Amino acid sequence: MPYADNRGVKIFYDNYGQGVPIVFLHPWTTNGYIWYFQIFPFARTNHVVAIDDRGHGRSDKPKQGYSIQEHASDVLAVMDALKIEKAVLVGNSIGGMIAMQFTLDHPERVLGQAIVSSGTALGEGMPKEAREAFAKDYEGTFSALLDGAVSAKTKRERPEIGELMKAHFMVQSNFPKYVFDSAMADPNGVFNWNIKSRLQSIKRPTVIFAGEEDQATPPAANKFLADNIPGAKLNMIKDVGHFYQLEKPLEFSAALKEFVAGLR
Amino acid sequence: MPYADNRGVKIFYDNYGQGVPIVFLHPWTTNGYIWYFQIFPFARTNHVVAIDDRGHGRSDKPKQGYSIQEHASDVLAVMDALKIEKAVLVGNSIGGMIAMQFTLDHPERVLGQAIVSSGTALGEGMPKEAREAFAKDYEGTFSALLDGAVSAKTKRERPEIGELMKAHFMVQSNFPKYVFDSAMADPNGVFNWNIKSRLQSIKRPTVIFAGEEDQATPPAANKFLADNIPGAKLNMIKDVGHFYQLEKPLEFSAALKEFVAGLR
Repeated sequence: MPYADNRGVKIFYDNYGQGVPIVFLHPWTTNGYIWYFQIFPFARTNHVVAIDDRGHGRSDKPKQGYSIQEHASDVLAVMDALKIEKAVLVGNSIGGMIAMQFTLDHPERVLGQAIVSSGTALGEGMPKEAREAFAKDYEGTFSALLDGAVSAKTKRERPEIGELMKAHFMVQSNFPKYVFDSAMADPNGVFNWNIKSRLQSIKRPTVIFAGEEDQATPPAANKFLADNIPGAKLNMIKDVGHFYQLEKPLEFSAALKEFVAGLR
Repeated sequence: MPYADNRGVKIFYDNYGQGVPIVFLHPWTTNGYIWYFQIFPFARTNHVVAIDDRGHGRSDKPKQGYSIQEHASDVLAVMDALKIEKAVLVGNSIGGMIAMQFTLDHPERVLGQAIVSSGTALGEGMPKEAREAFAKDYEGTFSALLDGAVSAKTKRERPEIGELMKAHFMVQSNFPKYVFDSAMADPNGVFNWNIKSRLQSIKRPTVIFAGEEDQATPPAANKFLADNIPGAKLNMIKDVGHFYQLEKPLEFSAALKEFVAGLR
């Protein structure tokens, strides 16, 4: 039964292998599949867990409840269900936000965190026009956002990634439009959640991976995380946008492996 | 509950979208993740189902029961659970063998079948030395086989694919060694199943996709299928080995889309 129950909300997870646990947290609108090139290679040496966030993929999709805090509480439910005491968290985009929130809430459960292209509020500074554009043309605006989330090299050499990232949010059974609307309206949803003032309180080993060409969570937003989380290391990655794990899968896996090996 | 029950064996499936059903059947030792670049793009217009074969991934892994006929009966259980009357089957390698067996057993449930790098008996002509090599060095022999299953271009440009294909069979919680042994010994297991004499009885629209550089199920084995299944069309693909859907994902998806559009 690959579900954890968090007060009635069923959270889907997939898990393989044995060893130091690594919990993978995906970007918004996607699902645990995005870690395909990591799950099985890492499961040779680690206990790998890939979660589908509530509102995504195979997890329950309640009408509301999409604060980052609620997403973080789902991670706890999965770790408890699997009897994982401590894990390395790997979070991309909203997954990184969930990881940071979880590390603030439960530092004793975290060995370290790898944040891949994230920030403290995706919508911070999002112009009013952008919100209006989403309201007027959901698919077109989202697609344009995703076009800016993949590097030029990835577009040339791995054009399937851009296509796939767009398909995720268009498949209602993977990511219903009402989840977007609910998160948009939530004072702690992905666009509004802001922990600028609490970054200094994150006390676990942290590495930030940022794609140089990421226009969704730009280099400056990631540099801000690294500058404010005590001891955090920043890795800026050339020819990568928002999805390092898919755009350069082997290079990302090697960097993550090195980070995990350096913990404890 | 993403499981179908086939006489006590639980078969995991993932499914998204609405429209003409497409059931994806993965290669041996892998799992439904291998269709990641197809599942969500196709789910925009189709009901997409990706199954984990028994003995693989998230499905049950009984000690025995790995004939191709039993795998095919699992597909029926999934289609029944989802109330799918007719589907397009897409099978790669053992997935293609399962598709052909299913089409022979239940032609009335099949709209058409796309066979990606398959054959009528993987082990046919497998030299005694190869069997001995597996017995002596499972990981090394399997890895060498997989090295021959990916094209030179894929090795250069998408080196993560070869690494991933090797990781699948090394992760015991994904594919236990006893599943290999049981299938090897089964008179209708992947290495022994042979329907040469029944190919003429396959009466549903069929396309065969074969990688020119596939050494696992070589071009000749795929040409044999196309020559003997009435009306089957053969597409030989340049710079591709055994895993067209990962080696050239957009090109494969376009070819599959065209095949699906031509049915009915």
